[in-house]
Amino acid sequence: MYTRKFRNNVRQSSEVSETITAEKKQPQRKPAERGSSGRKSGGKNSSKLKVIPLGGLHEIGKNITAFEYEDEIIIVDCGVAFPEDDMLGIDLVIPDFSYLVKNKEKVLGVVITHGHEDHIGSLPYFLKELNVPIYGTKLTIGLVETKLKEHNILNSVERHNVNAGETIKLGNNFKVEFIRSTHSIADSVALAITTPVGVVVHTGDFKIDFTPIQGEMIDLQRFAELGKKGVLLLMCESTNVERQGYTMSERSVGGIIDKIFDDSKDKDQRIMVATFSSNIDRIQQIVNSAVSHKRKVAVIGRSMVNVVKTAGELGYLDIPKTTLIDIQEIKNYSDGELVIITTGSQGETMAALSRIALGEHKQIEVKPTDKIIISSSPIPGNEKSVYKVINELIKKGADVIYDGLMDVHVSGHARQEEIKIMHALVKPKFFVPVHGEYKMLCCHKNLACELGMDKNDVFIMANGDMLELTKNSAKHTVNAVPSGQIFVDGLGVGDVGNIVLRDRRHLSQDGLMIVVVAMDKYTGEILSGPDIISRGFVYVRESEELMDEARTVVNDALDKCERKNINEWAYIKTLIKDTLRDYLWQKTKRSPMILPIVMDIE
Amino acid sequence: MYTRKFRNNVRQSSEVSETITAEKKQPQRKPAERGSSGRKSGGKNSSKLKVIPLGGLHEIGKNITAFEYEDEIIIVDCGVAFPEDDMLGIDLVIPDFSYLVKNKEKVLGVVITHGHEDHIGSLPYFLKELNVPIYGTKLTIGLVETKLKEHNILNSVERHNVNAGETIKLGNNFKVEFIRSTHSIADSVALAITTPVGVVVHTGDFKIDFTPIQGEMIDLQRFAELGKKGVLLLMCESTNVERQGYTMSERSVGGIIDKIFDDSKDKDQRIMVATFSSNIDRIQQIVNSAVSHKRKVAVIGRSMVNVVKTAGELGYLDIPKTTLIDIQEIKNYSDGELVIITTGSQGETMAALSRIALGEHKQIEVKPTDKIIISSSPIPGNEKSVYKVINELIKKGADVIYDGLMDVHVSGHARQEEIKIMHALVKPKFFVPVHGEYKMLCCHKNLACELGMDKNDVFIMANGDMLELTKNSAKHTVNAVPSGQIFVDGLGVGDVGNIVLRDRRHLSQDGLMIVVVAMDKYTGEILSGPDIISRGFVYVRESEELMDEARTVVNDALDKCERKNINEWAYIKTLIKDTLRDYLWQKTKRSPMILPIVMDIE
Repeated sequence: MYTRKFRNNVRQSSEVSETITAEKKQPQRKPAERGSSGRKSGGKNSSKLKVIPLGGLHEIGKNITAFEYEDEIIIVDCGVAFPEDDMLGIDLVIPDFSYLVKNKEKVLGVVITHGHEDHIGSLPYFLKELNVPIYGTKLTIGLVETKLKEHNILNSVERHNVNAGETIKLGNNFKVEFIRSTHSIADSVALAITTPVGVVVHTGDFKIDFTPIQGEMIDLQRFAELGKKGVLLLMCESTNVERQGYTMSERSVGGIIDKIFDDSKDKDQRIMVATFSSNIDRIQQIVNSAVSHKRKVAVIGRSMVNVVKTAGELGYLDIPKTTLIDIQEIKNYSDGELVIITTGSQGETMAALSRIALGEHKQIEVKPTDKIIISSSPIPGNEKSVYKVINELIKKGADVIYDGLMDVHVSGHARQEEIKIMHALVKPKFFVPVHGEYKMLCCHKNLACELGMDKNDVFIMANGDMLELTKNSAKHTVNAVPSGQIFVDGLGVGDVGNIVLRDRRHLSQDGLMIVVVAMDKYTGEILSGPDIISRGFVYVRESEELMDEARTVVNDALDKCERKNINEWAYIKTLIKDTLRDYLWQKTKRSPMILPIVMDIE
Repeated sequence: MYTRKFRNNVRQSSEVSETITAEKKQPQRKPAERGSSGRKSGGKNSSKLKVIPLGGLHEIGKNITAFEYEDEIIIVDCGVAFPEDDMLGIDLVIPDFSYLVKNKEKVLGVVITHGHEDHIGSLPYFLKELNVPIYGTKLTIGLVETKLKEHNILNSVERHNVNAGETIKLGNNFKVEFIRSTHSIADSVALAITTPVGVVVHTGDFKIDFTPIQGEMIDLQRFAELGKKGVLLLMCESTNVERQGYTMSERSVGGIIDKIFDDSKDKDQRIMVATFSSNIDRIQQIVNSAVSHKRKVAVIGRSMVNVVKTAGELGYLDIPKTTLIDIQEIKNYSDGELVIITTGSQGETMAALSRIALGEHKQIEVKPTDKIIISSSPIPGNEKSVYKVINELIKKGADVIYDGLMDVHVSGHARQEEIKIMHALVKPKFFVPVHGEYKMLCCHKNLACELGMDKNDVFIMANGDMLELTKNSAKHTVNAVPSGQIFVDGLGVGDVGNIVLRDRRHLSQDGLMIVVVAMDKYTGEILSGPDIISRGFVYVRESEELMDEARTVVNDALDKCERKNINEWAYIKTLIKDTLRDYLWQKTKRSPMILPIVMDIE
């Protein structure tokens, strides 16, 4: 058991020399409002640290966790999720912030571990409701700023750059140390959050990469040091916890890409590489190969162009000025002198690579001599779209290299052996697996228990649950605060809910049939109709007989009403609906949405 | 190159002793109609063998190939495909049979390699259009018969059982030898089709399993013998051609399952196993473990019940009478005495396991002591549904074992090394990779070329293409015959096409808005409305303002018409549509389908 070797006197402050202090400006409140507990570190303190995940549990995406102590709350990350297949028409899914909005005056700020969408994507929506300072490393803040600019709120938001190794003070109760980490985006950090009851280590997303492209390796020593001193709670990501072994270093991909460039040297092939725009280290490696093979680099795809610009300006991407060219300039070079870096490695319909594959891109047309590297692997759910793009590119004659054929991608997430290292270094008193579907969280719990943790010290939490921590205890409350999925559709945030989605699903399966009747308001006489209009049900021109019969069925139903002198809207509508539904089911075994519309004419 | 060692005098007949003769009864035609070429084997023959794939190329599923020689056609397999994500509301996809229907009098019969849906699923639809005899091994025909029964056409269809090792004669030009094969369903065969121009070997789906559960290993000797004598064309499946190495034997799964049973012995755990209902060997292994662990077996899920019944009756599944119990009887046994075999291993919404996971199954409720084995791996596109089911089962406390955690599944398809063995044995003159997406076919072509084939002798074909073969030549014609996807939706076959699907997609994204107006036919005066009805667009109760404004926008447009004395339907409709579309886009950045309905009142 971890707990045997655990020191009880959790340290209250970090020993890192550089400390940034940041206190939320807010009206001074009377001590009485803060409750009776003392505030001094090491003092007798009956207050508890509340850890409240609002996203990222039982799901992949929209990571966000609130840490609350007395009248102060800090937030770690603020990500989006991408819609599931059955969330028709939805653009993004963001967390339910209502608990934070309700406790507005407590919130001190948002600390961000790295610049991926599932960690920063909800920030604009959150900040529009709750304008608090944000803290992150330089690249992370740079990527957030691009996002805030798009939402026209850049100038109203207070941003703080923090370096890995530094500690910031938030309010009276929180110190947050940024620990250098490695992931599939540069400038990622883990966090050590010092609170009055102890230290919480939050890994963010990580892998243990000893040879990253940007900067130094993950600061394993610091995790060990914190662990040695005593960590109250570890929150560790679970994305790859079901996979055995180690994730390879990002550098391993560079070697493969370089080899592909070597092979293309004499063939005068144009090289295109699709990858995640956020994977700046991957982009750097592609650029390095381009430079050493004397090729120019052009960049396409909105997010790729944005990221290359931001990362270049901030010094995270080193592209010699003579290497980077505008996409318009490619015509001035031979194919053997070109590398095109593009978005679309996940088969996203609107991304550059998909449009290239379908021959719909303005500037790039696939040539049979092209060599195209898909430097990613499909995220679960995207397989078919990715394969479709690959098939189309190969059909156009291109030589396509994808994950599986060659190792042109590595994950950014730690596998089992790396996760074990994290546990072995941190040796927390309590453990909450985060970032993952339920099965992954359970797998992570099992892994922790195999390493010696007591299963009672591991908590499988859900969004909206609360873990209340003292120096020696942890209490898990289920459904402690509101949580959930808020759908973003176009400009609408939250205006599409389950009823709208249910209708979209119904319409998507069998289409709809509209029956319109104009009726004399006083006599109940049919003045016009019934007219039947259908969409998405059958191809009407080839189903005239069915449509004629449907009209007859409705007419018969209306006749019945007229004979019985019924002119009650609701009754007539229900009758039309039921009659038509039964008829169509019997004839087609389909259930279109039926919308009867009765117009009263005075 | 294969061709160097290839003997030119392709043999005209098989030497297998047992021969079944089957000739299509058809009116005798005058020799003149048959053209001038001779018919005897070995004679001077200028006719060509036409190989026409109508499904299964550039896709996974709906495998079907026509072989045509002069006035005779035989068909190999007749499968369905499952709808892609964007084929909203579609139940099944079947091939376009129009070429065969057009050449009705030529078609001698359908030869089936094995009983999987992607090889037999379209038979009922095909046979309703073209009633010809079908040929297959006992289990295959048994499974087809279940299907024909459901479509009420069993009695009108001529079925022939053929054993592996036997040869059937079809018409004057075809002899088809059934070669024992191994796959994830028992009684699978490959085919050697002897024609006047040479032998075609069609592998069907296969893996090289030296220790299958049912019957003997794949008849590698026969492939070698045929190859030695000379094979004109190899058609080999490509499902796993992108994967290195070998697929493990089905028997390896049995060992793992048995171990799981061992581990559950003392825990009094109920065991549930989900797998493909067609994988009878897997079911047999589960049953074997149940018998040796003194557990009773109950079967749930319609297709599982059907297959167990059919396979049991035909002797392909050996379940001791005392072992098999009805699902109603499980209450008479303790959990430690039970095994439940179920459908739903692909997360299919309506299958038993999904309903169990959601707590919606009538007979089975998950217990925290249950051990559940998902003995399959997700087919691409099904990952998220499968994970969802696993998550739900774990949430209910069950101990769930799935592929990845333990090796509880093996594929039924040959990987690269097995495919190489097939090529090395058959050494064909020409080669057509079949069953696979375009990228797989290309990968298979590369593999064949690496083994020494000339790339001009390998043909990447598409559905509807034709390969015309003589003894020494092959000519590939693109788009030679009609081919495509016919959608089955409810009872409708082919009545849902691209226009209907486009409407369903539109409706699924942003819903619809209906605007109804009743208008005096003569004066153009608005008698009622405009009324606005929306579905799947916004939650109307919370968007009253938007809906009110929308009505105002439409009213303004109508006023404009009235003022200008315009009462032309088409114009008014277009105006309403455009005005409303612009307004809604500006307000919401969404584009619901807008349906303006103008009713004329006399």
